[in-house]
Amino acid sequence: MSVVRVVLQQDEIPRQWYNLNADLPPQNPPLGPDLKPITPELLGMIFPMNLVEQVVCPDRWIDIPEEILDMLYRWRPTPLHRAKYLEQALGTPAKIYYKNEAGSPAGSHKPNTAVAQAWYNKQAGTEKITTETGAGQWGSALAFACSLVGIECKVYMVRISYEQKPFRKFMMQTWGATCVPSPSTLTKAGRDVLDKDPDCPGSLGIAISEAVEEAVLDKGGKTKYSLGSVFDFVLLHQTIIGLEAKKQLEKIGQKKVDVIVGCAGGGSNFAGLAFPFVADKMNGAQIDIIPCEPTSCPTMTRGPYAYDFGDTAKTAPVVPMHTLGHDFIPPPIHAGGLRYHGMAPMVSQAIEAGLFTPRALHQTECYEAAVLFARTEGIIVAPETSHAVATVIQEAKKAKEEGKEKVILFNMSGHGLMDLAGYDNFLQGNLQDYALPEEDLQSSLAGIEGLPKPNPIKLG
Amino acid sequence: MSVVRVVLQQDEIPRQWYNLNADLPPQNPPLGPDLKPITPELLGMIFPMNLVEQVVCPDRWIDIPEEILDMLYRWRPTPLHRAKYLEQALGTPAKIYYKNEAGSPAGSHKPNTAVAQAWYNKQAGTEKITTETGAGQWGSALAFACSLVGIECKVYMVRISYEQKPFRKFMMQTWGATCVPSPSTLTKAGRDVLDKDPDCPGSLGIAISEAVEEAVLDKGGKTKYSLGSVFDFVLLHQTIIGLEAKKQLEKIGQKKVDVIVGCAGGGSNFAGLAFPFVADKMNGAQIDIIPCEPTSCPTMTRGPYAYDFGDTAKTAPVVPMHTLGHDFIPPPIHAGGLRYHGMAPMVSQAIEAGLFTPRALHQTECYEAAVLFARTEGIIVAPETSHAVATVIQEAKKAKEEGKEKVILFNMSGHGLMDLAGYDNFLQGNLQDYALPEEDLQSSLAGIEGLPKPNPIKLG
Repeated sequence: MSVVRVVLQQDEIPRQWYNLNADLPPQNPPLGPDLKPITPELLGMIFPMNLVEQVVCPDRWIDIPEEILDMLYRWRPTPLHRAKYLEQALGTPAKIYYKNEAGSPAGSHKPNTAVAQAWYNKQAGTEKITTETGAGQWGSALAFACSLVGIECKVYMVRISYEQKPFRKFMMQTWGATCVPSPSTLTKAGRDVLDKDPDCPGSLGIAISEAVEEAVLDKGGKTKYSLGSVFDFVLLHQTIIGLEAKKQLEKIGQKKVDVIVGCAGGGSNFAGLAFPFVADKMNGAQIDIIPCEPTSCPTMTRGPYAYDFGDTAKTAPVVPMHTLGHDFIPPPIHAGGLRYHGMAPMVSQAIEAGLFTPRALHQTECYEAAVLFARTEGIIVAPETSHAVATVIQEAKKAKEEGKEKVILFNMSGHGLMDLAGYDNFLQGNLQDYALPEEDLQSSLAGIEGLPKPNPIKLG
Repeated sequence: MSVVRVVLQQDEIPRQWYNLNADLPPQNPPLGPDLKPITPELLGMIFPMNLVEQVVCPDRWIDIPEEILDMLYRWRPTPLHRAKYLEQALGTPAKIYYKNEAGSPAGSHKPNTAVAQAWYNKQAGTEKITTETGAGQWGSALAFACSLVGIECKVYMVRISYEQKPFRKFMMQTWGATCVPSPSTLTKAGRDVLDKDPDCPGSLGIAISEAVEEAVLDKGGKTKYSLGSVFDFVLLHQTIIGLEAKKQLEKIGQKKVDVIVGCAGGGSNFAGLAFPFVADKMNGAQIDIIPCEPTSCPTMTRGPYAYDFGDTAKTAPVVPMHTLGHDFIPPPIHAGGLRYHGMAPMVSQAIEAGLFTPRALHQTECYEAAVLFARTEGIIVAPETSHAVATVIQEAKKAKEEGKEKVILFNMSGHGLMDLAGYDNFLQGNLQDYALPEEDLQSSLAGIEGLPKPNPIKLG
């Protein structure tokens, strides 16, 4: 019997998060919407102070509160699989492992930070959390988390998704959240957009503006904003994925890992798996760490490292990151979670430091990989995750050509059972690869030209 | 830290199925569509002989072939959870445990038998498997299994579901199966129905007739039929659920179980959990074993124990079971998997023997229970599973009234992420409880009057 699935008991769960900031050079600081250095007090208008403190915390290890563990136990630790059947189909000498994050109630890695953010908010006296969601993965994860701690949850959902994908909305409502289509008439940001374009299909940037506005306008401070990726504390909460994976690999005597892969939209699932291995790499381990993204939204592979706004209305903090410009409008690929214009500052910083080697993939190659994965490993992955699967297959084929027994580890960040239309398009031969017109890219990049420039990143 | 989740490693998986037939009095034998005793050869026209042999096998324990275990490892063993958060919400002294079968690739317990049936068929030289599906749970599970062993899979899907729920079809196609709406023009059974009613929305009974016809007409014997519940070998394959649960309860020192609950449409998920505990009950353990069903399709609570046809066209075997009559048309409740007119012969036999105490529940009570479950335990259960959750809540409340620390175990047979419309209906106040008109019930029961009567069941 070869081992294809390794599980951990509840009491083997990691009890601390890993803070990569402790091992990287100091970050370029975030700026306020006014482009002046942002103060903790200013961030405190958006987030509760106990989460703001996590961003500036210098400690390498941060204890996970018992109450958060108690929520995570509902689905964690998650299994580590060996993709033996995919290996056989590829005839590769590579060993492929993956963390399976699809078993959470919302079907992805998102609840890892949702329960943490909900709990810290509850501790801080927050009574209502606002957020945005695109296809609905994050909105449903936060709705779930808020139902556990007993906080009101309001989700601004990109209108086109709200109308085309009612099922994610039903999930949010089942967990007691309110879900409104964005742009809405509930906020100034939404009304401004609707004044110009009453039929606006919405965008993540607009929805962020609406959610932030509602939080900031609550002068009593009982309404806070929450987000599902990009920010340091979100990535921190996700490191439990990689820390579990390390324990599981150890359990089966798998000491070295050669390649680590994760898809990256805002960067949180990739970071969650990869960050705990970065220290090993900085200590000399030979590991290729590959965040992957769509060719049609090439934030890491084409976007410069620059200060940019996180949202369209320019009300969110300005952060140093790989970005395509805050006005970038991505083509309508199925991987809604990979259509954000920016990349997490911590991931961007590590790319600049030469620790990660980003890769971009076409949509059809990703679905082709996902169908092979479904027919071998059995799991129908999310459109976002298909980018990781395609990258892994490229690496496994390379190992075959080179005749090397590489060990590849990737994050199977979520299932695709609520996003099956792309599979149907692919199988019917109707799936498009969207080329990104160079003039569109240059035009949106022009939008960051007047902003301050971050200092270059150099490893100690 | 209280234990809320118990997992087993791959090598702790049960390596034998439990055959309840070895411990029950001999069954009333199945009959052919001609009402004469069915021969193994006749069954062999529909199923491969290695599966037919499992039906008549007298052994208590049947080895699970290594190759089937190798497929089960993709998601098994499944976790056992303690529903601590539901207990707290109810303020009950009862301890509630549940097996979580939602983590399989298809999202339910169905793949447990799908991979077994696909493998036995492959061994027997079957090249194509036909089956029927209602809402699509079973069709997608079999499509998944067939993709693993490399057998063609054709699914006749009830037309109304095929049109209203394209996503299950997309799943089947992703796993390489063909899915056609039933009634179809591909079979005589389908054409006969369409001749009378070109707009027929279809039914499970019609779809079974079509799938069986296609298998029987392949005189080369390379096409076989497969089904997702009711038959003895299906229930046998599901006993891995209860056998794992026993190991997991043992691991945490939980020696006694007072109440076991599972929803029962054809009976397989209920049987899978409950059968391994029946021997304990026959040896004197005090266990209430409760299969539950909708009040609008009250097979066990209102249907007599009688011989009846498994399908509408009267081409499937005639079996002794609790039945509402093969012409029964259930109201359109959301729990598509609980709308079958019959109940597994083995479950029916055990009910007759006084081993199980069936219970019927209204749809609104079930959704109310499911929403409470989602907001405490986090998981959005399938409409079918909501019947088990509602029964468990009834039992937990009873324990509270009686002040007894009962131990309740139930089967969380699948997630509801692909069947969310019922939740929306419930939350919007639009959910109906369908009363079953007494004259409808009596009229469909009249359809079994001319059939042979089974002998009464008495425990040794």
